[in-house]
Amino acid sequence: MGRVTARHKVVRIDLDGDVSRAIDTVAGEEPLEIRVNGETFTVTMRTPGADVDLAHGLLRAEGVIRSRDDVVSARFCSDLDTLNVLNLDVPGGSVARAATGTRNLASLGGCGLCGTTAVEAVEEVVASRPPDMVWAAENVAGALDELRSRQTVFAKTGGVHGAGLAPADSNGAPSPSSLAIVREDIGRHNAVDKVLGAALVGDVTTAGALLVVSSRASFEIVQKAAVSQVAVLACVSAPSTLAIEAADRLGVTLVAFARDRRLSVYTHTHRIPH
Amino acid sequence: MGRVTARHKVVRIDLDGDVSRAIDTVAGEEPLEIRVNGETFTVTMRTPGADVDLAHGLLRAEGVIRSRDDVVSARFCSDLDTLNVLNLDVPGGSVARAATGTRNLASLGGCGLCGTTAVEAVEEVVASRPPDMVWAAENVAGALDELRSRQTVFAKTGGVHGAGLAPADSNGAPSPSSLAIVREDIGRHNAVDKVLGAALVGDVTTAGALLVVSSRASFEIVQKAAVSQVAVLACVSAPSTLAIEAADRLGVTLVAFARDRRLSVYTHTHRIPH
Repeated sequence: MGRVTARHKVVRIDLDGDVSRAIDTVAGEEPLEIRVNGETFTVTMRTPGADVDLAHGLLRAEGVIRSRDDVVSARFCSDLDTLNVLNLDVPGGSVARAATGTRNLASLGGCGLCGTTAVEAVEEVVASRPPDMVWAAENVAGALDELRSRQTVFAKTGGVHGAGLAPADSNGAPSPSSLAIVREDIGRHNAVDKVLGAALVGDVTTAGALLVVSSRASFEIVQKAAVSQVAVLACVSAPSTLAIEAADRLGVTLVAFARDRRLSVYTHTHRIPH
Repeated sequence: MGRVTARHKVVRIDLDGDVSRAIDTVAGEEPLEIRVNGETFTVTMRTPGADVDLAHGLLRAEGVIRSRDDVVSARFCSDLDTLNVLNLDVPGGSVARAATGTRNLASLGGCGLCGTTAVEAVEEVVASRPPDMVWAAENVAGALDELRSRQTVFAKTGGVHGAGLAPADSNGAPSPSSLAIVREDIGRHNAVDKVLGAALVGDVTTAGALLVVSSRASFEIVQKAAVSQVAVLACVSAPSTLAIEAADRLGVTLVAFARDRRLSVYTHTHRIPH
């Protein structure tokens, strides 16, 4: 319980060869209940570890907190066997404030519920647009190479996503040391929350930063990037329609299919000189 | 709005070659609010299409309905521009009954919240164990090949997951016609809900079936398979610890890393002769 990885017996069948018995290393998955002032905010399935970062990142993205000073304490519930219930004391904060976040979209949209409503909800949380930091295509590709090389849990299990943050002040610095923070998780949203939450906790500036993600680009990933004023979001795989619409309206440069030394730039292309 | 795919401008940068401007086909992503008897059950981001299947599958997995007869009607909210709010009339059903599902895990676990609690919650919804249908490794690999060839939205966008169901009575039938139902969605959970929901709506037997999924094997995918009494769940990518624990306890044969004519079998290996 509560481990980043665990070992399990497996029967491997090769249809053109042998059957073998082995021990596999498997990515951990456990529920985490995040409470705000003792009240349940959400339950998410995550890979244990960096839970305080995860909670900070999620609450930041949902508009419940804006800075690390908004959180007085973050403590695991003490009378239990597992480290799966985390309470954050947020004076003046409440679960109700999350009503502007996507997790409670229903409260916003009603019969008008559509993608545009979802983007408008994020606009209410976003304090200001990302600054116009320029990132060279070579640096974006280099950061993704660095992410891959630092995904140690993925290397062991093949079962987790990774995310990494290159702050604006590392821009132009020589690779392979651009990523100030790297986190992994079975959930791609969690990996991003852990990175942006670690930045909030560690006072690493996200405004103007490059955020690299091993997965596809969905609406919620763009939302998280926009709230933290990330300038360039670069994803290894495909974008969705709503991710593109959100990035366009929220001022984020969205790069997808970022692999094999190729980048597809969908929005605010001026930040990637070409 | 509301389309399976849309076209977007893109700037393609090849770091060792040219820059080109093109039009990409992108996978649709829109919120769907599912209501039960007029009350919000959940909001999920999904690729539009097969929404009635999706709602049936989700409500089945969460224990709100057990058969298609439990649903009297499924209608989109009529006074809106988008088809993003779907109400299901479920006499005797209520949102509260979903308290046994993972979406409301918090109500179960409290300070004892752990993976085992999550599995126990699913055990309450599962009526009985999957029957001991045997699936040849060749048939499992063949079904995955068929799934890939039928993922038409993926072929256009690179941005969606796929799932397919081979009912028990198709077992032994010649490939490539084993999959009775194939669905795609940007969310892997949604793809599975659409397939199992379509089976419920179309009266296709899922007990003893083979379910193939293009993604990783997480706890929630195993949950959905177990509630529908799927015998063998085969996923292209890695499993998680909790997926293995759940499959073990709920009687599902879990196959992962099912690609390149290789299968890794983690639980109830007797169903895949080797």
